[in-house]
Amino acid sequence: MTEFAHERHKPQSLLQRERALVVACAPLRTNVNLSRIVRAAGCCGVRRIVCCGHAKVIGKIARDALDPENPAGLSLEVHRTLAPALVKLREDGYQLVGLEQTTGSKCLYTFPFQRRTALVVGNERQGLDDDVLRLMHDVVEIPVYGLPYAHNVATATAMALYEYCRQFPEG
Amino acid sequence: MTEFAHERHKPQSLLQRERALVVACAPLRTNVNLSRIVRAAGCCGVRRIVCCGHAKVIGKIARDALDPENPAGLSLEVHRTLAPALVKLREDGYQLVGLEQTTGSKCLYTFPFQRRTALVVGNERQGLDDDVLRLMHDVVEIPVYGLPYAHNVATATAMALYEYCRQFPEG
Repeated sequence: MTEFAHERHKPQSLLQRERALVVACAPLRTNVNLSRIVRAAGCCGVRRIVCCGHAKVIGKIARDALDPENPAGLSLEVHRTLAPALVKLREDGYQLVGLEQTTGSKCLYTFPFQRRTALVVGNERQGLDDDVLRLMHDVVEIPVYGLPYAHNVATATAMALYEYCRQFPEG
Repeated sequence: MTEFAHERHKPQSLLQRERALVVACAPLRTNVNLSRIVRAAGCCGVRRIVCCGHAKVIGKIARDALDPENPAGLSLEVHRTLAPALVKLREDGYQLVGLEQTTGSKCLYTFPFQRRTALVVGNERQGLDDDVLRLMHDVVEIPVYGLPYAHNVATATAMALYEYCRQFPEG
């Protein structure tokens, strides 16, 4: 029988190269969701989050994900609107992948991410606007099997971050 | 170029058979985390959550995950302490899998779940108690690559639920 002894908050797993994943958030209804996304992205080694509107990160939720003392830390860029920032990411060679329930969307379970990906996350109520959806190379969705009909946005983002990291465990 | 049109809150994916996954939670510090776990479990088609202490689900967060009108819905069992409920799950043939950073833990990325699994989730600060860890068949952990040193408990649970569903997309 295996003995399991606590190793909470043990040193992080090492990436062989910097995470090439960017997370881009539409204006969210609540900074709680944004802050949860920031924490999860920090844990995943993501270096860059693009967001917009009146985005403000709640330190108690995001913890030290945005620690300015951390040289390998996460930076948060706040833009007025999302689309121009996404156009720039496209130009910089990022595969834009929306997280949404749409026609033509692919299942996250089997979606092969490109390493250089911008994961684009929509508003809690409206999801991604049409002008943003038009910029996507792909849309992925997470199957839902019961009620409620959709995952919370931060929960869905965590699942997509997990899947990306699973595919690129070393960066 | 693919056109992506919204299909928000579309009908759920169908399971070929009932989800055999049970989620079991140690007493959590906040009912917010419990309620987020309940919502995510509901979306994943989980039928049964075991929790303990003063667990109370916040409807605004869990949404209709506990809808009593839903015949395929989720039921929440509140126990005084977790260990006896886990012993019963073991007797009923569930593989007990703790979600924790421990010695001897396996990486969630490559962990093959058994269909009949109880995913056991610990307290935000203390994690799983030793008397609970002793009951586990396996412990899985999620690699962390940056700050903070650990995922939020509801975020980690969402990732583990996702991985289970990915392995059993049809139940």
